[in-house]
Amino acid sequence: MSIVSDLALANRLADAAGDAIRPFFRARWAHEAKADASPVTEADRAAEAAMRRLLDAEAPRDGIIGEEYGAERPEAARQWVLDPIDGTVSFMAGRPIFGTLIALLQDGWPLIGIIDQPITGERWVGATGHPTLLGGKPATTRACRSLSDAVLATTGPQYFSDHDGEHFMALAAKTAHKRMVFGGDCYNYGLLSSGHIDLVVEAGLKLHDFAALVPIVEGAGGTMCDWNGDPLNSDSAGHVIALGDPARLEDVIEGLACDH
Amino acid sequence: MSIVSDLALANRLADAAGDAIRPFFRARWAHEAKADASPVTEADRAAEAAMRRLLDAEAPRDGIIGEEYGAERPEAARQWVLDPIDGTVSFMAGRPIFGTLIALLQDGWPLIGIIDQPITGERWVGATGHPTLLGGKPATTRACRSLSDAVLATTGPQYFSDHDGEHFMALAAKTAHKRMVFGGDCYNYGLLSSGHIDLVVEAGLKLHDFAALVPIVEGAGGTMCDWNGDPLNSDSAGHVIALGDPARLEDVIEGLACDH
Repeated sequence: MSIVSDLALANRLADAAGDAIRPFFRARWAHEAKADASPVTEADRAAEAAMRRLLDAEAPRDGIIGEEYGAERPEAARQWVLDPIDGTVSFMAGRPIFGTLIALLQDGWPLIGIIDQPITGERWVGATGHPTLLGGKPATTRACRSLSDAVLATTGPQYFSDHDGEHFMALAAKTAHKRMVFGGDCYNYGLLSSGHIDLVVEAGLKLHDFAALVPIVEGAGGTMCDWNGDPLNSDSAGHVIALGDPARLEDVIEGLACDH
Repeated sequence: MSIVSDLALANRLADAAGDAIRPFFRARWAHEAKADASPVTEADRAAEAAMRRLLDAEAPRDGIIGEEYGAERPEAARQWVLDPIDGTVSFMAGRPIFGTLIALLQDGWPLIGIIDQPITGERWVGATGHPTLLGGKPATTRACRSLSDAVLATTGPQYFSDHDGEHFMALAAKTAHKRMVFGGDCYNYGLLSSGHIDLVVEAGLKLHDFAALVPIVEGAGGTMCDWNGDPLNSDSAGHVIALGDPARLEDVIEGLACDH
């Protein structure tokens, strides 16, 4: 398949996921219901099932790695990586800043990535070698002269181990206290790609959390790597840096390397 | 003035603030510009100036306490409390979850409160003795049987002193790790009033940060108080609890009262 038809399919997957998710957003949730029946779980499953149906019909030889339903055709060179709701707690809390993540890997390398926010209607689309698009228009990261100017985002302190948290705080100490923002999940990487956030630093991300982000951030002019500056892979233990201005990478890695 | 005309004026203030703010949202910001010229500062000032113009024309005897331009007619029994952009870092980062806060105090007591989100078009309106409205429809908090079920929100750990942070973490330990969400500012209190978040706990809030929230949360069936369970006032040092199900208040206060 060509990149054009792959992108068209990826967009149809995002459409299908959004259609499945929207009815559950801000549905009133009786706490006494079993966790299995929570709107976020139902939305997560409905969205992944909808995407799998499309893939089974339109790309039956491709593999699928899904956050909810596991792996299918793991031997295939092409793998679709699906995270129907990245930011489940944001979804639960009624915030329109969660996202559906869709990536296409070729031999383990992400060719295509989508971040879709089905409530606001925002969709970032990245493809290796192509400029990143938000709503069909090019999205670009912005320059950042110094870490002290950077808007720094991370989803929450609870996702760091104590050890990781110390490294993160060492970095945060080099940025401006008033420009640190918490929460946001995948939406932060979209906003970085559009030049509103300069730096996202997280730990504990899995393949389905970061695969889609790489072509989006890099196609917008930014860079993604692990906390040592190495390419992200399954050995990175989910230590992710996304940086809008690659010229600051050395500063970020130095900032993270505290003496602990 | 009647509550009806006061509410109409409060809504016009929110309209004027939103009109002033929207052009600056996600404006590209050259880092080298002076901080004074940042879009968030310009939006903040333009919105407060627009609200003050309306108040000067339509309620010339009322006092004004504004986050940007200070106090006017401080001797008046009626005081409008304005925070044009609550959640400035969310605004800077391009997230549509900041808000404009408008309160009307009578002899120090909040009669009317508005949380307006000018990008999504959501507006929570509270008035003492009246049900809270979101988009003109009643908003209600939800029941919460146990803290272990609660969705707990707070804007960020950087807003707690070390001492406050220890108390917050003692409370957080009684809730479910997977239901804690960071970021959100005033928007969290709107979502609590609509039954999506159960508990917001913060420190360091000023009068202009919390005055508008009280009639909204209480008119939706929730409760707001300080960390000791006492009514919020200028002596509370900004230690704020907002709770959707008042039956859990004792559990929250006990949870915050760690041994440090």
